[in-house]
Amino acid sequence: MITRVILVGVEGAYNLGVVARTCVNFGVEELYLVNPKADLNEALNYSAKAREYLSRAVVVGDLKSALEGVDLSVSTSDEGFSRGDVLRQAITLERLPELVKSRRVNRLGIVFGRESSGLTREEIAQTDLLVTIPANPEYPALNLAQAVAVVLWEVWKMKGVAPTNVPPLAPRERLDKIVSVLSELTDLAVTPEDKRRRIKTVLRRVVYRSGMSELEARIVLYMLMRLKRRVWR
Amino acid sequence: MITRVILVGVEGAYNLGVVARTCVNFGVEELYLVNPKADLNEALNYSAKAREYLSRAVVVGDLKSALEGVDLSVSTSDEGFSRGDVLRQAITLERLPELVKSRRVNRLGIVFGRESSGLTREEIAQTDLLVTIPANPEYPALNLAQAVAVVLWEVWKMKGVAPTNVPPLAPRERLDKIVSVLSELTDLAVTPEDKRRRIKTVLRRVVYRSGMSELEARIVLYMLMRLKRRVWR
Repeated sequence: MITRVILVGVEGAYNLGVVARTCVNFGVEELYLVNPKADLNEALNYSAKAREYLSRAVVVGDLKSALEGVDLSVSTSDEGFSRGDVLRQAITLERLPELVKSRRVNRLGIVFGRESSGLTREEIAQTDLLVTIPANPEYPALNLAQAVAVVLWEVWKMKGVAPTNVPPLAPRERLDKIVSVLSELTDLAVTPEDKRRRIKTVLRRVVYRSGMSELEARIVLYMLMRLKRRVWR
Repeated sequence: MITRVILVGVEGAYNLGVVARTCVNFGVEELYLVNPKADLNEALNYSAKAREYLSRAVVVGDLKSALEGVDLSVSTSDEGFSRGDVLRQAITLERLPELVKSRRVNRLGIVFGRESSGLTREEIAQTDLLVTIPANPEYPALNLAQAVAVVLWEVWKMKGVAPTNVPPLAPRERLDKIVSVLSELTDLAVTPEDKRRRIKTVLRRVVYRSGMSELEARIVLYMLMRLKRRVWR
């Protein structure tokens, strides 16, 4: 799925720069700007490693052009509900991923409004859905670039890209080995057979539930082996 | 549960202001600043309606003081994994809510580092867990205030606070009424009994799956009633 972020009338250069960076952070393929008020050259300075990405953003004159080729269009607002107003009948952000997934959307367009005044009624009416972040009822209005981050995170999670900045988990065999050494240590430390069994059950569960990384498991095993040698001496 | 956000050595006044706003957006009770480099007075200008909240932030001299009273401490980094480094063995953000929930944490402390250089090794070592946002492998480093927004959103969702900016869903009776009118219309439009049954099954499912709000259901029902009258005329 291709994701297209569409900023309508973005006003702040800092926000624009940070939004571009956030788009790269969450693998957004396309960035469209409808009548940006912000200075694009200034925004480049705030986009960090997304500088080149931002310079390739597509600038258009109206929302209709920005929505071309999109097969599900979503507008965003913190005012997701207003009694009697058919335009302000939003779904919460949590429901978006499932909806996008089940519809097998090819190109998702997500529209964000102006920092000062959001999207106009005409703009919201041009999209298929209105989505809101169900934040603190006392102050639900997020800053633009924060709202973009939260929405894109939900869409990114849906894609299920394998992360490279988390460690690989320990292989089954390493955990088995840890359980086995813990079992030997239990036999050394405790005599009654029923107590041993109980303890072994607990240790085994703790080990398999721990989510140890490869490195962590190796180090735990090292410590246990040293301990074993020490006890047997 | 109380959430405490701890910013260590925050450098940018804009980031600090926006983080404070984001904290209010996601119901964060406590904001601690460890040796902030940013100008606090300048930051107030960027905090929107979180101005008073930011002015009550607790400024301390070291991370240890900021972690007092916290019963689960989490540090954050985009470098969640480094081969052979016991400090860089992070869990992904998705796993945090379940962990916090199942431990029945009273006060969760979430530590964010400097924009330029993140947290030091000593700082990470002072916390119970390292958490990372599994973003685009090609560029996983989010801007500080963006990372705060994404992490706080996940914690906020866990709290399950009922949103006020989404519409109330249609009551069961209204949907029943819609299904019933659709059924009458089907009887009017289609003759063979087996076809009628198939159509009614489909319409019923579509209605109950639609997630119509109170207002939307009322308007749909209105349209159907008008249609019915028109057909019978």
